[in-house]
Amino acid sequence: MNATRGLGFRFAGSGIALPRTAVPSVEIDARLGRDPGWTEANFAIATRYWARGDETSSSLGAAAASAALAAANWDAGDLDVVISACGVMEQPIPGNAPLIQRRLGIGASGIAAFDVNATCLSFLVAFDTLLMGMAVGKWRRGLIVSVDLASAALDFGSPESSVIFGDGAAAVAIEADGPSRLLACRLATFGDGSELCRLESGGTRMRPTEDLDAFLAVSKFRMDGPALFAATAKRFPRFLRDLLAEGGVAAEGLDTIVPHQASAAAIEHLKRSVPDGHARTVDIFRDHGNQIAAGMPHALHVARERGRLAPGSHSLLIGTSAGVSLGGAVIRW
Amino acid sequence: MNATRGLGFRFAGSGIALPRTAVPSVEIDARLGRDPGWTEANFAIATRYWARGDETSSSLGAAAASAALAAANWDAGDLDVVISACGVMEQPIPGNAPLIQRRLGIGASGIAAFDVNATCLSFLVAFDTLLMGMAVGKWRRGLIVSVDLASAALDFGSPESSVIFGDGAAAVAIEADGPSRLLACRLATFGDGSELCRLESGGTRMRPTEDLDAFLAVSKFRMDGPALFAATAKRFPRFLRDLLAEGGVAAEGLDTIVPHQASAAAIEHLKRSVPDGHARTVDIFRDHGNQIAAGMPHALHVARERGRLAPGSHSLLIGTSAGVSLGGAVIRW
Repeated sequence: MNATRGLGFRFAGSGIALPRTAVPSVEIDARLGRDPGWTEANFAIATRYWARGDETSSSLGAAAASAALAAANWDAGDLDVVISACGVMEQPIPGNAPLIQRRLGIGASGIAAFDVNATCLSFLVAFDTLLMGMAVGKWRRGLIVSVDLASAALDFGSPESSVIFGDGAAAVAIEADGPSRLLACRLATFGDGSELCRLESGGTRMRPTEDLDAFLAVSKFRMDGPALFAATAKRFPRFLRDLLAEGGVAAEGLDTIVPHQASAAAIEHLKRSVPDGHARTVDIFRDHGNQIAAGMPHALHVARERGRLAPGSHSLLIGTSAGVSLGGAVIRW
Repeated sequence: MNATRGLGFRFAGSGIALPRTAVPSVEIDARLGRDPGWTEANFAIATRYWARGDETSSSLGAAAASAALAAANWDAGDLDVVISACGVMEQPIPGNAPLIQRRLGIGASGIAAFDVNATCLSFLVAFDTLLMGMAVGKWRRGLIVSVDLASAALDFGSPESSVIFGDGAAAVAIEADGPSRLLACRLATFGDGSELCRLESGGTRMRPTEDLDAFLAVSKFRMDGPALFAATAKRFPRFLRDLLAEGGVAAEGLDTIVPHQASAAAIEHLKRSVPDGHARTVDIFRDHGNQIAAGMPHALHVARERGRLAPGSHSLLIGTSAGVSLGGAVIRW
């Protein structure tokens, strides 16, 4: 293997932030009029966190960012760029990145701040973007912040589209020219599936001041789980094979697998798709649910905390998102 | 000058799309109860276009994208990536890129599609991202699509925040390894100014099903024009100086200036800030208004159509956005 292949970096630090309010599944059971234990039995989730009161996307994002900066032993002012990588923003204008930048106390710094969005795979795209910028000499120190408040738009009339979602934030601090390498990073988008997983109200098409009833009718997240699974599962084997081939790593050589925490069923499918997948996969779903874009970097933070990103070892970041897209990365630490 | 400095590319094609409905300023005058001519006299805008009926962000974005592909003589299937660069998306999930990808007839292709957002400067960030990806060998052919429907959220109680905005779309097709070079590209963000220019409803913070009145109260775009101008104007000279220094081009050496079409006053300020600015600046504001993220690539398309991007000549792309950010690029064609 060519030692200089891929994009170099150093994983300097990471952090997470959770809302104050943990919501155990028995509360969901009560809300749905189900027997205690129904949600956990059917969806393999025990707890998720929901933002309430003054907790916003930017406040939680900034808390995760501060934790990542502390872990890296960096001041916020040391950064060259802040990339927000979220599924849904706190507000349409401006984006999360400037709001988080301000909360970090660097709102007069001029440090570049922008958002990227590939729904649940936003972190992957931001990570690739950051490392490309480092490869061309544009940035030396960057922060990626993923935060999503799924609880803002859940329809409890559809349990599979609601009970599995939780709120949270995660951030990573990345430095150029370190020992680690992003060996491959791919995003495969199939827009034909854009209606399988969607939130329609909140953009330019549905207009509350023109037709409020129509706006409210589609103001909650909707997902056709079986169709979404079918659309991504049939493409997954080839996607993974191509990704690993580009990364030059065999499936057996993957030490740690860091998935988007889509659902217990999706993570189980992944575990069965790779050799020794149950032991290698970082699974935080039972305690956090699907945190949309924040799930993958949260799982990466956990992997780091647990010492599972040893120098020279290989990781696979992998997941699916609304779009629909498949995305993945191969990293040598 | 080092001939290999900067990021190489070929500007293969560009295109725009406009809504069917042109709205002359006399219609705005009537709406505001003003004498005919008031809007044009005060804001130097004659016409803007507004999307109506079946015209959406993705339909207009796809139309601009198709025009750019035709100009490049490319099939959509030739693309390696579709980057959406918009201020406000059609809907929160999924983003504009998958929706546009589907409308281009490549929704089963797996061609990567994602969104970047820096409000009015989204095109600049997407352009930089695309060229970074080409520099590291990730993509060979890319499409950037900017579309914004400002008309979705205008408050005509505030003329300065409403009458100057128009809807539109613009797209560019870019190929790796051409004769042109992006010599410098900078984004400077000052989140302390995030409240000067904002649209609050449509994300995770304002929740229509929890407090509809509060949601509707901030569902229109708001801008503090004088404060926004002050926050950006004081930083503009230094930003421009640093950008040109990085690009290795003197202000006198700029052949064509392609600004974000923020307002007549902002463009006039720019024209006075650079030598011979009135002759060199591409100004489409009077006929289109501020199309948010679509304005800069629309102006770039016009510059191309008018033969103002001659081989070897230099262009400056420059503008400000909500955030607040200043952004700019220096290109040698």
